[in-house]
Amino acid sequence: MPDIIHRVGIKAKPQAIYDAITRQDGLSNWWTRNTKADTKVGGTIQFRFGSGGPDVKIIELHPNEKVQWEVTAGMQEWIGTKMTFVLTPDSTNNQQTYVSFKHSDWKNASDHMTQCSTKWAVFLLSLKSYLETGKGQPYPEDIQISVG
Amino acid sequence: MPDIIHRVGIKAKPQAIYDAITRQDGLSNWWTRNTKADTKVGGTIQFRFGSGGPDVKIIELHPNEKVQWEVTAGMQEWIGTKMTFVLTPDSTNNQQTYVSFKHSDWKNASDHMTQCSTKWAVFLLSLKSYLETGKGQPYPEDIQISVG
Repeated sequence: MPDIIHRVGIKAKPQAIYDAITRQDGLSNWWTRNTKADTKVGGTIQFRFGSGGPDVKIIELHPNEKVQWEVTAGMQEWIGTKMTFVLTPDSTNNQQTYVSFKHSDWKNASDHMTQCSTKWAVFLLSLKSYLETGKGQPYPEDIQISVG
Repeated sequence: MPDIIHRVGIKAKPQAIYDAITRQDGLSNWWTRNTKADTKVGGTIQFRFGSGGPDVKIIELHPNEKVQWEVTAGMQEWIGTKMTFVLTPDSTNNQQTYVSFKHSDWKNASDHMTQCSTKWAVFLLSLKSYLETGKGQPYPEDIQISVG
């Protein structure tokens, strides 16, 4: 089954990126403004895009290195899928940290899932922009990849 | 083996998108300015990004529906991989056409391949921008997703 996979290099320290993917204020600056986070392992983060959006349970937190969530509520197609972020300092450029991202455990490679792949790139570039410039493009300011 | 998969909705007719992914002038407006295309099935398209870049052989051309290339020269990791574009009019919005994109047949899910996934999103959004506004962001005007 295909996974959604991405990798970006961000001019920021691992700790700054870790904060942006684990803290409510960080997450709300690049994925969706409407984020409510219980930030411990086993806690739930609610992401809302208009009226809907996923709840994720925090499965793993390895400070400055790795974060994993599992979707527990929201669109049927998302439930049970996992998002994993792995942070790796660039060994050749100490200003840059790589973020490897995977959204896995999809039941089908549907059109929706394929479109999510492109949309995740948009949001990971929003994360990069937030960390490098102070300004991301979280929902509802996100770049549109289609009508509807 | 994971594939790179994307899907964008473009406010354009299938024929306009087909032209943009099959003609030299179209391709040079969203992927790289330095494109030389022999545009028939079996022909080679040379894409250059600075001094390097892939040569692809045109495997399939189904007007306004599907295009497939196979990489024949360039980075070792790309050789033998295939890029496939499938165009589908949006049945609910006759101004929009979906482009489903796959870059398949990778030997390994390497960091390079994962980073290519994100970069393909950038170029497919460049294709969308080119068709909707007349202006894409082909190399060397492309959005950077990392340093180096």
